[in-house]
Formats: sequence, structure tokens, C-alpha cells
Amino acid sequence: MAEKIPIGILGATGIVGQRFVQMLEHHPWFEVAWLAASDRSEGRPYGDAARWKLKTAIPARVANMRVAPANPEGAPKVIFAALDASIAAEMEPRFAEAGCAVITNSSALRMQKDVPLVIPEVNHDHVKLLECQTWRKKSGGFVVTNPNCSAIGLVIALAPLQLAFGLDTVMAVTMQAVSGAGYPGVASLDILGNVIPYISKEEEKMEEETRKLLGKLNGSGIVMGSFAMSAQCNRVAVEDGHTESVSVKLKQKAKPEEIIEVWNKFRSLPQEMKLPSAPEQPVHYMTPSDRPQPRLDVDSGNGMTTTVGRLRPCGVLDWKFTVLSHNTIRGAAGAALLNAELLKVQGYLE
Amino acid sequence: MAEKIPIGILGATGIVGQRFVQMLEHHPWFEVAWLAASDRSEGRPYGDAARWKLKTAIPARVANMRVAPANPEGAPKVIFAALDASIAAEMEPRFAEAGCAVITNSSALRMQKDVPLVIPEVNHDHVKLLECQTWRKKSGGFVVTNPNCSAIGLVIALAPLQLAFGLDTVMAVTMQAVSGAGYPGVASLDILGNVIPYISKEEEKMEEETRKLLGKLNGSGIVMGSFAMSAQCNRVAVEDGHTESVSVKLKQKAKPEEIIEVWNKFRSLPQEMKLPSAPEQPVHYMTPSDRPQPRLDVDSGNGMTTTVGRLRPCGVLDWKFTVLSHNTIRGAAGAALLNAELLKVQGYLE
Amino acid sequence: MAEKIPIGILGATGIVGQRFVQMLEHHPWFEVAWLAASDRSEGRPYGDAARWKLKTAIPARVANMRVAPANPEGAPKVIFAALDASIAAEMEPRFAEAGCAVITNSSALRMQKDVPLVIPEVNHDHVKLLECQTWRKKSGGFVVTNPNCSAIGLVIALAPLQLAFGLDTVMAVTMQAVSGAGYPGVASLDILGNVIPYISKEEEKMEEETRKLLGKLNGSGIVMGSFAMSAQCNRVAVEDGHTESVSVKLKQKAKPEEIIEVWNKFRSLPQEMKLPSAPEQPVHYMTPSDRPQPRLDVDSGNGMTTTVGRLRPCGVLDWKFTVLSHNTIRGAAGAALLNAELLKVQGYLE
Amino acid sequence: MAEKIPIGILGATGIVGQRFVQMLEHHPWFEVAWLAASDRSEGRPYGDAARWKLKTAIPARVANMRVAPANPEGAPKVIFAALDASIAAEMEPRFAEAGCAVITNSSALRMQKDVPLVIPEVNHDHVKLLECQTWRKKSGGFVVTNPNCSAIGLVIALAPLQLAFGLDTVMAVTMQAVSGAGYPGVASLDILGNVIPYISKEEEKMEEETRKLLGKLNGSGIVMGSFAMSAQCNRVAVEDGHTESVSVKLKQKAKPEEIIEVWNKFRSLPQEMKLPSAPEQPVHYMTPSDRPQPRLDVDSGNGMTTTVGRLRPCGVLDWKFTVLSHNTIRGAAGAALLNAELLKVQGYLE
Repeated sequence: MAEKIPIGILGATGIVGQRFVQMLEHHPWFEVAWLAASDRSEGRPYGDAARWKLKTAIPARVANMRVAPANPEGAPKVIFAALDASIAAEMEPRFAEAGCAVITNSSALRMQKDVPLVIPEVNHDHVKLLECQTWRKKSGGFVVTNPNCSAIGLVIALAPLQLAFGLDTVMAVTMQAVSGAGYPGVASLDILGNVIPYISKEEEKMEEETRKLLGKLNGSGIVMGSFAMSAQCNRVAVEDGHTESVSVKLKQKAKPEEIIEVWNKFRSLPQEMKLPSAPEQPVHYMTPSDRPQPRLDVDSGNGMTTTVGRLRPCGVLDWKFTVLSHNTIRGAAGAALLNAELLKVQGYLE
Repeated sequence: MAEKIPIGILGATGIVGQRFVQMLEHHPWFEVAWLAASDRSEGRPYGDAARWKLKTAIPARVANMRVAPANPEGAPKVIFAALDASIAAEMEPRFAEAGCAVITNSSALRMQKDVPLVIPEVNHDHVKLLECQTWRKKSGGFVVTNPNCSAIGLVIALAPLQLAFGLDTVMAVTMQAVSGAGYPGVASLDILGNVIPYISKEEEKMEEETRKLLGKLNGSGIVMGSFAMSAQCNRVAVEDGHTESVSVKLKQKAKPEEIIEVWNKFRSLPQEMKLPSAPEQPVHYMTPSDRPQPRLDVDSGNGMTTTVGRLRPCGVLDWKFTVLSHNTIRGAAGAALLNAELLKVQGYLE
Repeated sequence: MAEKIPIGILGATGIVGQRFVQMLEHHPWFEVAWLAASDRSEGRPYGDAARWKLKTAIPARVANMRVAPANPEGAPKVIFAALDASIAAEMEPRFAEAGCAVITNSSALRMQKDVPLVIPEVNHDHVKLLECQTWRKKSGGFVVTNPNCSAIGLVIALAPLQLAFGLDTVMAVTMQAVSGAGYPGVASLDILGNVIPYISKEEEKMEEETRKLLGKLNGSGIVMGSFAMSAQCNRVAVEDGHTESVSVKLKQKAKPEEIIEVWNKFRSLPQEMKLPSAPEQPVHYMTPSDRPQPRLDVDSGNGMTTTVGRLRPCGVLDWKFTVLSHNTIRGAAGAALLNAELLKVQGYLE
Repeated sequence: MAEKIPIGILGATGIVGQRFVQMLEHHPWFEVAWLAASDRSEGRPYGDAARWKLKTAIPARVANMRVAPANPEGAPKVIFAALDASIAAEMEPRFAEAGCAVITNSSALRMQKDVPLVIPEVNHDHVKLLECQTWRKKSGGFVVTNPNCSAIGLVIALAPLQLAFGLDTVMAVTMQAVSGAGYPGVASLDILGNVIPYISKEEEKMEEETRKLLGKLNGSGIVMGSFAMSAQCNRVAVEDGHTESVSVKLKQKAKPEEIIEVWNKFRSLPQEMKLPSAPEQPVHYMTPSDRPQPRLDVDSGNGMTTTVGRLRPCGVLDWKFTVLSHNTIRGAAGAALLNAELLKVQGYLE
């Protein structure tokens, strides 16, 4: 296994950190080499420090690794980060400055001008933005981000529409799973038999990240997508999987069968280059009238496929439909991992 | 109690029928005098025939009443109906023809040209439409309907906005409780930890009923509201209370504090006439950023108040906000009961 | 209202503290006069400091009261306490020493030799134990406790059996609501669609508290009940209401109809003296084969009645049955309140 | 694939029927050749007739198969049955009489004297009982059953204890998943946020099946296990996985570490013969104090391993512990499939 690239994980004990460990267990290119978390965990075996909440068993090798201090010294050159935004804001620059490739799920730097916000199927060319980073110039280190769990499924469903028909207006209402809030996250007393119509800063993130992701790289910056956009975010009593009711106005007329074909045939660089975590089909349109549903469809494409359904005319905009995306796989750990695979084939991890 | 108006209930054993029985228990004007349900229940004591699912005890007097055959013979002159649409389509005309005042929660006749679809706070003048009904002319009987459980909360929140600022466009995404589907209704395997993005015919009902309710009575017909409208309906794992994420475009500019004042000060005929089931405040705006929530707010105003929250600008239309309404009280039994009270004070139940 | 006894609440912002505020709102004898909580809340209006989680609105008068420092100075003479055990262990003695009547829901002192653990219907005579307390002798202050939320329903169901037939053996398996763990308490990721077969120290509390409650006052101590006892405690996805599957062996033979009569006819001092919070019927046996259920029956007797059902022979002991009790009313705030009412009529609050 | 044994499925469209289809998709010995269900489904493609409720996609080949009439004519010689008990009582004998090997999950014939009730790890020798069946003698056909979903996990956990220490007394309280009731099964209004302390006939089945499974084959009959046994059955809001709180009295003294070793080392014929669906480890003891939990552990050993935890002394019997078993895999379709594999290696399917 000597040739695998050693990976460090910042924030390794949280829900997304655990997903990193899980998804890297049998990865052909990468292997977990270093784990860091809060001071409380430092020095303890990972298996003790992490309250493992996934259905697959904790990998034995990783369970026995000691949690390291969260410092660049001793850390590998490639870092996956799953930190709270406030901590990430301070720590990610420190690792980048020390020469690390920081591939992060945190929101801290996503909207920073010189930081690429990337979905490999959608805007892999935005990666070039990292060449503008001061860290890159000084130490070779850099930061690449992936979007919020509520934005990514939406954007993957919108990207083929934008390519084929142009995008004029987007309205999205989310029904988000509790795992999106981490652990312990949402209190059971707040969500059992309930809907919470508010997630702090989520709507702002969805709106601005969607525009950046669907924007154009222009020299040293991104020209934001010009469509109008509005998001409303709700929390529901679902474990995994964000469901979204979406309405769009397109720039060109489209027939429903054309839209469905555009979705089902959508392929991009990750599929062409057969990146290990890339789903065969990034978008899958389901024909039954009551799908997608999180309980039945969230694991589609190992949690990396965005499922879409219920395409029908909208009385206000042009079309309405339902989008489902796995929030801790495609919406977090899997997003960062696919970014890392993209960076690898683009030569940035050498 | 001799002066109370005797009430018959069609579909008395279902979830909405049970709510009728519950809400009529201590009613000052009405009392349950006759109960009908499917053939299976006929002749049995109501307490045996109904699988009582409410948290208050079944009223002892009603529990001992025998379920009657569903025929106008022997039925009182005022009938509350809570039948499946397909049965209602056949049965409600039969009772109206026999001279009964049929006050129904069923969707069967709601969109029929000469049938009033009424929310007393919103369009009490539409009641006059019943004078056009052939039944009325022949036997004195008539049919008055209330809207779908997903439409009523929305319309009560929209009515004050329409009055004050004019309504241009409405988009609504619902997260609906399982009690809206009756009993047994939604299978637990379908909804535990899940969202179902589809409820048969619900979006069509929401869109057309909203336009009829906010339309204008014009001689012998209703001129539908002219605003654009789009609805998306989802089922979530909530017992009671439909939550809706709404966006609107108004005809005139409005400040948020004006909108909130318009909601909180909205009063109408039921409040002025102090109808027994009328909530003191039809719309209540909640200021905390994470309200309304079904678990905490559904019983507001004994389940008759529509709670609204999270008013904020919309990136596509003008404003977005959250609406919550109790689906089996304000959205079904309470809606019909308030219609009956309106009809009483208007002299139609004599 | 000058004659009402002023009440101070320690731990006023938590779930049980909120229940105290709710249950005292219209109380004929007591009124909230002082609220204390953690340092974080000190000085803030209660309405801001408490994240109110109950379905009834927060009482306006109390919402505006400032949270006081948790010191006996300035506190009223009667204190209701809803503190975490570790804090209670230090704070309750301090208030008792300062001359306060501390009526507490905390587990800290329940098993202390000179501290009464009381259910007014079951062992009101145990109150006399407080005369042995050093605090009582020095300052007039004392501590009286009520049992754990998992023990109280069981003991109320067992007490009439012990009186009528004698108790030989008790086995209980609980399915406990999440509100029993306070707020935020159980993480939604831990309990949605799940059972957690473990609640820290709960089984020990159930077993020893049951024996103390059903024990005999003997001079300056309690002779523990001599029956064998085993408890297993599970957490389930229920908001309010602990359900328990119980098996018992009695000392004398009993017929099922005798047992049911003994339950339904059970009355005690609180009923005779018509204490304001006493349920008319402490134990109510439900005959339908699938009752009691927390969703339908938890509010029986305003949450103060213990409902029992499914009495049938046990293949190992004599009888098995199901018990349901409201864990934050009868099992916490209501238990302490009824203890306070008992102390009042016994002359201990003067 | 010509050499695979063709399998017919009776009751193919239900939840257990779907599990049969799912588990047979890549089976090395068997393949689905014939599907029957109710009249309503007859003649339709299976993919249309079955409302597929599993997370893996419906196998394309099977989806296209037509549902056949439920008659032995045209059916293969090996039949997996997942019928309601009342239908099974009539239909299973008819197929056996026609010469079919009927391997059934139904309760209809489980307790019949000459019908083996089998868990391959526990009582594989009981299979010989089928030689006493009249069907076997006349046509070669026979019926073999597997236990109820609530009994099987318990019995797999008890079997090693009985072997090592002898079994004196068993008490079990279940918390059962909704999938055990089939589809649509439990209404969501009945179980959201609730516990139902009753499942029709379940306790009787658990008690008598446990004794038959742990009984001894004696010539042409089974001598029932002689231990005392009591079961209480509850339904909880869990999708898959029955959790049980168990207490036992053993005939010999045992130390906890001995019991745990006996569980973890338990192996039997299916493991020795490496039957395709046999779990490597039939019983797995989990050491964390809050395990097993259905959400995290139900898929252990592909849903075929029984997980056990929380072994501790019982104040009434000797030991108490928690058992978890997947109710539609180990408790239904997987149980029948493993029985079929056992029958295959024993030469009964030729």
C-alpha cells in the first residue's frame, strides 16, 4: 500500500469526519494516515474519541490510531477538513500556509474570492482559481472547498439544465435531514413529529453558493451566475437525505422529455476519467410519481447520485420538480473526496 | 338543551367525523343527533364502530348512539359531511335534494359553479351562491363547502395581504401532516424517517381552491382570483399541522412591519359576530426566528388560528414566510363548523 | 392574591422547571415569586433565558421576571427544585440549611436515610422523616423528594396491589420518552427510528426507589420493601410518557377482576383532602386490548393519572400488565407540586 | 445458470416476498422462476404488481416476470411462502400435496405436530420430522417452517446458553419494528411518537415456538423445552429490527465472561457447511453499554447475525440482557432461505 497518498483528517471525530474514515477505508488512491480533532480527543485512540454513529463498523486500523494535535507539524500534505466554520476560518489558512492541500467541507472560505468552490461534474475548471492563492505561491499549499449540503444536490440538478437551456430563475424549498446538523446536533425534543422552518445561515449559503458554482471563471475570479434565486430551508425528522421542492424558469423552451433526457445523459469529467468515487450517473430521473424519497433513494449511486422526480409544469415559473441528495455523502465527505480525486488527476496532489 | 339545533354527521367514524363529534361536545348552538357511516358500522353503537383516535375521551352520550343508515330519511335537517370524495359526489346531492343543509368538508362539489366554497373570515359573501342551487329552489336544501386542509391556512394568510396590498403571484410548498390522509391513511413504513413528495390531486386542489376563495362573487358565479399560483405538496412525519413555505409578489410595495400589522390586526365577520368557534385572532405572526412549528404551535387559538412567521425578502418574488395551520381542525372539522355557525347567523339554518 | 404562598424555582429554565411554571400558573395556593437557573441566565428576563418548549404559552407575568442568583438570600421559604443531580447535591442542602422547604425532583438526596421520598397517594406518612433532618432542627428548613420518572408510575400501580394482596416479586421493562432526558437531552440522530437500551443509572434508581417508596417508616428510618425487583430501561422515540411492561408475583391469590377493581377504586389522602393537583383517580385501568398508549393516554387526569392495561396471566410470575405515566408531569413537576400540597395541608409550609 | 434450482414464491408482492426476491438475486444455488400473489396481481408484471419498498433496486429480470396464478400447476418444485396465516393454512397443504417442498415463513402450520419448525443453527435435526408428513409419503412434498420474527432472535441467543448451562426460566419484553406487520401494516397515526403495547397473537407465538425450537426430537414428535417462559410484545416506531429486554435463569451457575464467550463462539451446522446465507457468527456480543441498537446494528452479518449486549445480573432471575434481530431478514425471508439451504445440503430438494 506504499504508493497510496497519505491523508490527514481535521475534525475526524464528527459525523462528516466519520464519513471520511468510512469512505477512505477501501480507497484505491488514498489512505488515512493522521487524525486530528478537538483538544479533548488528543492522544486518545480514534475508536475511543469518536462516538461512531455509522452503520458499518469502524475500520480496525483507524480505530487504533491516536488522535494527533491539530497542527501542521507531523501532518501529511493532503488534508481533508470537516471543522466547524469558526474553527476552520482560523485553522485551514494555517495548514495551507504550511504547504498542505486543504480539501474542506467547511463553509468558512467557500465564498472567498480566490478559493475554488467545486463540484467536479459542474465546474471542475474553477480549480484553477487556487493558482491565485497567496498560500499556493508561498508554500505550495492551497484550499479547495465543496458546497453546503443543501446546495450541492440542487446545483447538480441545475447544471445540465443551464448547459442545455440556460437558467433564468430558481426557487427551492428544502426539507433537510438531521445529520446535516452534525452530532449531537438537533435535539430529539425539537424534531420528533415536527418541522423546524429555520436553519441558521442556510438560505444565504444556498443562494450565494449556487450562483458561484454555476458562475464562470474569468481570469482571477468567478463571475456569479446571473439567474434570480430564492431558497427556504426547513428541518424535518429524516436521518439522511435532503429533499427539495424546486421551481425553475429556463432561458429556452424545453419539453419535459428533453429535460429528463438532459438529466439522465448528463456526464462530466469525473465520469470520463472514472474517478473512484464518481457515480456512474450524476443525475437520475425517477419516473414513479411519488419519488424520490429519502428513505428509499438516498443511497442511489452509493450516495453520490442526485435523484430527481416529479417534473411537471409550474404555474408561476416554467417547471417544478423534486431533488434528493445524500447530505453527508454527496453533500459533505463524498464531495470533498471527489474534489481530492479531481485534484489528483489534475496533478495538484504531487 | 331542547333549543339546540340537531346535527347529523355523515362519515362520522373517520378522523374528521371524530373531530366533529369532539368539537360539538360542548357547542352552545348545535348538538349531535344522528350519525351515519359505512354499511359496516350501521346499527352498531358509535363507540364500537369508530376507532377513536383523539386524545380527549369519546363523549359518553355519543358513544352510545347507534350508527344510522346513510339516508336522508330520519336524518336531521343540518348535516355535517366528512365523506370520501367519490361517495360524497353521490350522497351530498341526495341529502340536499331531500331538503338538508349539507355543510361538507369533502372536495367533491367544491369547484362546482353554484356551490359556495367558504372561509368565513375570507369570503363570507360567497354563501349567497347557494341561492342559485337547484336543490335550494326545489327543496330548500343546499350544499356549502370548505377548502382543502392545505389551502385554508394559506388563504387565511393571503387574504389580509390581498386586501391591503393586492396579490400578484403565490408559490407554496407544503409539508403536510399524516392525519390529513385519514385513518389508516399513510402507512408507517412509508413515512417513518421519510418525506413523500406527492399527494394525489393535492396541488391541483390548492391552486384552484385558492383562486376561487380569493375570487369575487359576481351575480351567479365566482370570478377567480387573477394572481399566478403554483403549489408543491409533500407529506412529512408530523401528526397534526400543515407547514408551508410561501413566496408572494404583491401589487403594491409593503414594508415588513406593515405586513405583520396587517396580519395581526386582521379581523372579519366571525370575530365581529363572536361566532363560537371563531378564533380571537385569525392570523398570528410569531416573531421568534424558528416559528411556527407544528409541535408547538398547531393548537394556537384552539387549532383555529393560522400562525405565520419568518417574513423576509424573497430573491425572486417580494416576500417569503412560513404558514402553519391545524389540518383536521381549521383545515376540516373546524372549517365546516365555522361555516355552519356563519350560516346560522345568516339565517340559513332555520 | 396576597395570601398565596410565594414559590421559588431552582433550575427554572429546564424542561421540568418549565413544567413548574406551567402548572403553577393558575394554582390556588402557590404562586411563582422567584426563579433561579445557571449563571448564564442570571439577570435576564425568564422569557429570554428559558427556551420554552411547552405547547401552552409562557405565562406573561413570569416571562418578565428576572432570573435571580441561585442563593438562599432573597429566595422565598418554599423552593421547588429541578436541578441536575450533581448541582442539587451541593445546592439543596444549602437552601435547607438556610431555612427553606426544598421540594425537589432531583435524585441527589432521594436515597439519603433522613430524606423522605414521597408519593402522596402511596406513602404520605414518610413525610415525618423530615423531622429527623439536622436542617429541620437547626433552621426549620428541610428537603423532601419525589421519585424518578420511571419509578413513580410503577409504584402507583403497585401500591394498591401491595395493600390488597402483598407483593412478592416485580419485573419491569421501560420504554421511556425523550423528555425524561431534559433539553437538549437525547440527540435526534440517536433516537429517530431507534431504541436505545440504556439510560445511565436509571435501573438502579428504579429498583432502590421502588423499595424505599413501598417500604415502612420505622422510627427514624425506612424499612425497605422486601419484594424482589428487577428493572430494564430503554429509550424510545416518544415525546412524553413512559410505558412499562410489568410482571408481578403477589403474596395472595387474586382474580383479574379483583385486581382491576383494586386499581380503579384506589384512593388515598390526596383524593380525600382534594389536593388541587391530585387526580380524581390515581390509577385507571383501560379495557381495550391495545391500551394504554402514550400518544393517546398520557394526559389522563391532566397527566397525573397512571393508566394501566392488558392485565393477563404471566407464564413465570403471576400477572403481567402495561403501565403508562406522564414523565414530566406525574413523573417530575406534578410529583413535586403534589408533595408541596401535601406538606401544606400537613402544616409544614407555615 | 442452468443448474440453479428454480424457486417459486407464494405471496411474492408483500414485504417478505420482496425480501425473498432481493435475497435470491445473486444466490449461488437458487433462482426465482415463478411468482404468485393475490388475484389482483395475477397476470401483471411483478414490477407493477409489487409496491417495491426496499432500498436496493428491484431486480430487472424479476420485475418483468408475470405474476402466475397461485396453483401448483406450473409451479416449480421448491416453493418459498410468505402468505398471511389464514391463506397459508389452505394453500400450503395444497402445494405440499402436489409434491412441492414448501419452505414457509407463515405461522399457519408451525405448531402442527408433524411440521418441523427450524432454525438451522439451533435444531437442524428437527428437519427429520418431515418424514412423518402424509404429504411426504404420498407425493414427496412437505412443509418446513421457520419461527416468528419475535422468537427467532431470542432463540438464537438462548440456544448457546441452553447448551452450556441449561435453561430454567425466560422472560422477554419486545420492542418490535413496524415492518414486522407487513405493508401497509401499522398506520402512521398509530405509531408516530407512540408505543403500542399489543400485537395480536404475538405473545402466544413467542412462548410456544420458543419451547418447540428448544425442544427435543423424539421419534415422531417434539418434546417441548421444559423451561418457564413469559413474553410481552410492544410495537415501536422503528423500521427494521426487533429489540428485546430479556431475563433468564440458568440451570447451572455461569460467570458473565463465560456467557459472553459461549455466545461469541457459538457455531453450528450452517457455519460448518458454509451455507451461503449463514452468518459467520450467529451471535455477536457487543461491549458498549448502549448497544445493540436497531438503527446501528440491525444489518450485522447482512441482517443474519443476532446481536446481544448489556449482560448484567438480574435481581429476580440470574441474568438480564438485550437482544436485537432483523425481523424481515433473520426473522422472515432469510430464515426461510437458510432453511432451504439446509434442506438442499441434506438432500431434500432433489
